[in-house]
Amino acid sequence: MAKLYVVGIGPGGREDMTFRAVNAVKNSQVIVGYTPYIEYLEELVEGKEIISTGMKGELERCKAAIESVKNGKDTAIVSTGDAGLYGMAGPILEMATDIDVEIVPGVTAAFSAAGELGSPIMHDFCSISLSDLLTPWELIEKRIEKASEADFVITIYNPRSRGRKKHIEKAVEIMLKHKLPSTPVGIVKNSGRSGQEQFITTLDDIDYERIDMLSVLIVGNSKTYVENGHMITPRGYNL
Amino acid sequence: MAKLYVVGIGPGGREDMTFRAVNAVKNSQVIVGYTPYIEYLEELVEGKEIISTGMKGELERCKAAIESVKNGKDTAIVSTGDAGLYGMAGPILEMATDIDVEIVPGVTAAFSAAGELGSPIMHDFCSISLSDLLTPWELIEKRIEKASEADFVITIYNPRSRGRKKHIEKAVEIMLKHKLPSTPVGIVKNSGRSGQEQFITTLDDIDYERIDMLSVLIVGNSKTYVENGHMITPRGYNL
Repeated sequence: MAKLYVVGIGPGGREDMTFRAVNAVKNSQVIVGYTPYIEYLEELVEGKEIISTGMKGELERCKAAIESVKNGKDTAIVSTGDAGLYGMAGPILEMATDIDVEIVPGVTAAFSAAGELGSPIMHDFCSISLSDLLTPWELIEKRIEKASEADFVITIYNPRSRGRKKHIEKAVEIMLKHKLPSTPVGIVKNSGRSGQEQFITTLDDIDYERIDMLSVLIVGNSKTYVENGHMITPRGYNL
Repeated sequence: MAKLYVVGIGPGGREDMTFRAVNAVKNSQVIVGYTPYIEYLEELVEGKEIISTGMKGELERCKAAIESVKNGKDTAIVSTGDAGLYGMAGPILEMATDIDVEIVPGVTAAFSAAGELGSPIMHDFCSISLSDLLTPWELIEKRIEKASEADFVITIYNPRSRGRKKHIEKAVEIMLKHKLPSTPVGIVKNSGRSGQEQFITTLDDIDYERIDMLSVLIVGNSKTYVENGHMITPRGYNL
């Protein structure tokens, strides 16, 4: 029976892909994905049947991938980062109850970004997406509030798009009720792929114009500091 | 100048390592790590100088790795999962302010476990370690409380050891104040390596004896459900 691989390809560069992800792509006859993600795979997809769609075509892609497996073809549906976080693993399993599915984990954007910034996560953290397309904004606000109250490091996905310019400013306002203005914030755009840019600032001094939907923010906890250009959250040892 | 690679090798199996992690190990003359982690690397470390220590030797390993780089040798210090989450990236950057360090991200245990269970994370989540060796227990409790109040998926590291048998029971008690007793809980032991075991239960029906320090727990949010043996947190699409 044919199989569906739901593959997290990591941040985008080949070197941050796992062997399992590469093999899943190699073993598939059909590759399904958002057009730029397919392009990251370069020669890995040569000679294969490609089904690619634009940005908002997630469900269309899921349906096409499931259909392809039902037609007897081993198929990989690819997402950047990890397919199990804001990715395709959920929709696929929600829709496909009668085919063989393997979820192939990958390096998520926040961990790739963290590696570029130093060790900003390191300890207990929360991951929050600011996209309110699929989640009520009130719930997102509540999560930011509670995560800040409990002094978590907070990683923020989808911080800002043309249609949602003010969400990140509102999020920062909420965090500032519980986190110090001097809390370090690391911002990485296009982490782990070409066009990567990164900068470290503080919670009260963010240049919002430098943030877009391809950026990940990492907001420190009360112990996070910056040294030698690295953003560091201590593990807790007495050093 | 010699370089220090801080390498997350993923859950343990070779196939979940990234190409960058494998290359960092291959390019190093000296490999530093906890003995079992070195064993996962098998033939990758053949012919190299190995510095391995027991379980509580984290800081000893960090010092040895830094010393090795200062002696002019390219060195890799390896952790399972991602080195930037409860790993060695923090202590290394806290101690090593004058050497060239590259953090190599990897697949963390929670994402590996999630892939085995289905798509239990998928949406906003918090990662919490129940080890109070380096963190006050009161802060851990507060984080569990706030994360539950805001309906996050919660991933739990270090849930239970011989010396901390009751922490997980206390954590569940706190979660039950805000999460339904029927909330799905996925538990994976030795995720992504030999000896892997997994089971899905509910928050009010956890068999604590099956949980040890090599287990990861994933506690769902209010939308998480179980179908066909998969634990699924919906992304939020109307399906």
